[in-house]
Amino acid sequence: MIPREALIAAATRIFRSYGFAPIDTPALEYLDVLSGKGSEETDKQLYRFTDHGGRDVAPRGVLTVLARFSAQHIEQLGMPFKRYHLGKVWRGENTQAGRYREFMQCDFDTIGTRSVAADIETALVIHDLVRGINDVSEKWKNKPFERFSIRVNNRMILNGLLEKVGLTGRSVPVLRALDKLPKIGAEKVAEEMTKVAGATPEQIDGILKLATLKGSNEAILASLAVLLRGNELGEEGVRQLGELVETCEAAGISEEHLVIDVSIARGLDYYTGTIFETFLTDLPNIGSVCSGGRYDNLAALYTNRELPGIGASLGLDRLFSAMEQLGIIESRKTTAEIFIPWFAETLLGDYLRLAAELRRAGFAVEVYLEPKKLGAQLKYADKKGFLMAVIRGESEFDAGTARLKNLKSGESREVSIENIVEEIAGQIRPCTF
Amino acid sequence: MIPREALIAAATRIFRSYGFAPIDTPALEYLDVLSGKGSEETDKQLYRFTDHGGRDVAPRGVLTVLARFSAQHIEQLGMPFKRYHLGKVWRGENTQAGRYREFMQCDFDTIGTRSVAADIETALVIHDLVRGINDVSEKWKNKPFERFSIRVNNRMILNGLLEKVGLTGRSVPVLRALDKLPKIGAEKVAEEMTKVAGATPEQIDGILKLATLKGSNEAILASLAVLLRGNELGEEGVRQLGELVETCEAAGISEEHLVIDVSIARGLDYYTGTIFETFLTDLPNIGSVCSGGRYDNLAALYTNRELPGIGASLGLDRLFSAMEQLGIIESRKTTAEIFIPWFAETLLGDYLRLAAELRRAGFAVEVYLEPKKLGAQLKYADKKGFLMAVIRGESEFDAGTARLKNLKSGESREVSIENIVEEIAGQIRPCTF
Repeated sequence: MIPREALIAAATRIFRSYGFAPIDTPALEYLDVLSGKGSEETDKQLYRFTDHGGRDVAPRGVLTVLARFSAQHIEQLGMPFKRYHLGKVWRGENTQAGRYREFMQCDFDTIGTRSVAADIETALVIHDLVRGINDVSEKWKNKPFERFSIRVNNRMILNGLLEKVGLTGRSVPVLRALDKLPKIGAEKVAEEMTKVAGATPEQIDGILKLATLKGSNEAILASLAVLLRGNELGEEGVRQLGELVETCEAAGISEEHLVIDVSIARGLDYYTGTIFETFLTDLPNIGSVCSGGRYDNLAALYTNRELPGIGASLGLDRLFSAMEQLGIIESRKTTAEIFIPWFAETLLGDYLRLAAELRRAGFAVEVYLEPKKLGAQLKYADKKGFLMAVIRGESEFDAGTARLKNLKSGESREVSIENIVEEIAGQIRPCTF
Repeated sequence: MIPREALIAAATRIFRSYGFAPIDTPALEYLDVLSGKGSEETDKQLYRFTDHGGRDVAPRGVLTVLARFSAQHIEQLGMPFKRYHLGKVWRGENTQAGRYREFMQCDFDTIGTRSVAADIETALVIHDLVRGINDVSEKWKNKPFERFSIRVNNRMILNGLLEKVGLTGRSVPVLRALDKLPKIGAEKVAEEMTKVAGATPEQIDGILKLATLKGSNEAILASLAVLLRGNELGEEGVRQLGELVETCEAAGISEEHLVIDVSIARGLDYYTGTIFETFLTDLPNIGSVCSGGRYDNLAALYTNRELPGIGASLGLDRLFSAMEQLGIIESRKTTAEIFIPWFAETLLGDYLRLAAELRRAGFAVEVYLEPKKLGAQLKYADKKGFLMAVIRGESEFDAGTARLKNLKSGESREVSIENIVEEIAGQIRPCTF
């Protein structure tokens, strides 16, 4: 839990550094707010029941009550409204590695603007989130994590092509078939498109040509411009994708970290523009650790006002599981750096006062709670992994001193109690997580 | 949510500064783990249902699954095991001011020692928690909150007296009657004790004498010593209470903040020693904001090993509601201090790069996401409450400068872009919450 809390704190810090504000909503919601928002699958996974008042309710399975929240509060909040939301969600599904029945969802969204600047900022936040994961570890701190790529695409490009080849309105079955490309190959995808969407060989050829484009961002953009020429929707998609990639580069993201990938589609129907997925280079099989996109009609159910938005969701539990596999997580047994053994039986009040002084200087301090033999207490300190012990017996009290024992190096030194804070600060620093 | 997150962060920081480690357990638990732990009332309030696997479950109504957790993990954790746990709980009860169906519980406990030092440390943590509430506000920061008192008692004292007067085994009905003393008065309490516990007038007289003791901590301790003389249990209670009060004073708690109050009993039967309640001087009617005590048999259901412990629970939502009434909460509309208007249309990448630089220096920065007129953007900035705007148009870009506008004073100044971090740091500081 110590590194887990550090990861949550790091994500929170990053959201806030962009001016995103926290929101919270109830975990228990009316069933009709929750159901019908995702797939049939996610509806089935809800832990539905009837409460004391005879209402049909369920613990939420996603945090997307955002749409209702925004519609309800937008007048008071002003636009753009940028928010993050960290909270538990519950799904009655079969558990497996990185998939749990209860997990932490970690969403951020920008509501109320169609500007591609919001899409760009979303990419920057994802970039900071993934690079920041090293900060949960004292060992890797200040060495940004680099082994990842954010994959970006724009829904308007594929939808534009469907328009252009005459398959408008059949995007759902086409996307569903296309999603299987890496698993079943082009031939089977073509078969499915013929069967469920009635696509002709020429139409399928156009779609597969688009979906299998490879190369540098610049090369793909050039090919897309040719493929979509003459279709307004598609041209706008290519323009937005180009602006996003170019501006992110100007803002400091390197090309290896933000890659155009026309094969990503995202399952959910509500995305209308930019879409993101994020993969760890060394663990491609765990899937995307941060995904999202632009949805321009999400709150239509709740308000007549147009509420366009873009957001993404960090898979905090999945990412944490990946960080454990990558060796980024350091296990810690205590939140404190300093240990004060209770050595002279009558002096507990003095130990506690000294601890309070060190806490005021920013250190976390554990005083041992039983007046055992010093050896046993230091053994406990070693086991727990404190950085330093501050030892005072009767003789140190009489002399106005304390013995500082560095528990990593084993070195020990007697110092004046007057300078104790400076002496300790010279040897160790408060942990930042 | 911004000050609420600050309160949660402050509590977390305080727990960690004493070496308490975080734990988390599932929100959804088996019904038989949750029920039968509190009163019939709390059992009735559980949101119970049957899950997909036919299991009887409920979202937890308290966090005391600690007992099971400790019994399960104690070998691996070592003792003493000091933990904090912040989490939501759910109770299907009627809502009222400061009482909600979903609320945040915030517990801390020390497991595995009978030492009164753990009781003393619990008092110190409560003291820090309540004094620390001012830290959620820029205005009150570093001025500790002082208008509160922690009330302390010890169950052994009353139990000892019951032994002494010959009412052993009838502590539950006696306590229940005694709890009503402030509401119904001594005469009615005496009637109830006669009726439900079969107490004689002499026995009642002894109990009421104890329960109505008033005066300084020292005076009460002296009276208690007389009242309990000759009863081993009672004498041990008085000794522990005396040691607690004396050592807390030596450790820096003033007598007005830690008051012996022999009238507090706490409803739950499992307390066996020290008990705490905490009241705000200016809002006595909201009840205790932090309560707890020593329980020496809690985990008996789950393990043969003896697991004594002491802990307390901060009523975070109740405290937050009180802080609002006391005017400690400052409403904030943004988490960012700095605002960068998007002024020159083609320079978005440069604004975003500048924002990234300021973030690295510790500031939170919002870049406006649409290239609107400067006036409209500055109006938005005023409404949101940023501290400073960093304005760069084409001419400032050409000159290598930026205009810093202090949004509180309205003063404006052109500075070199090279020194921008230092110039800003000279005028504002990053918010710490």
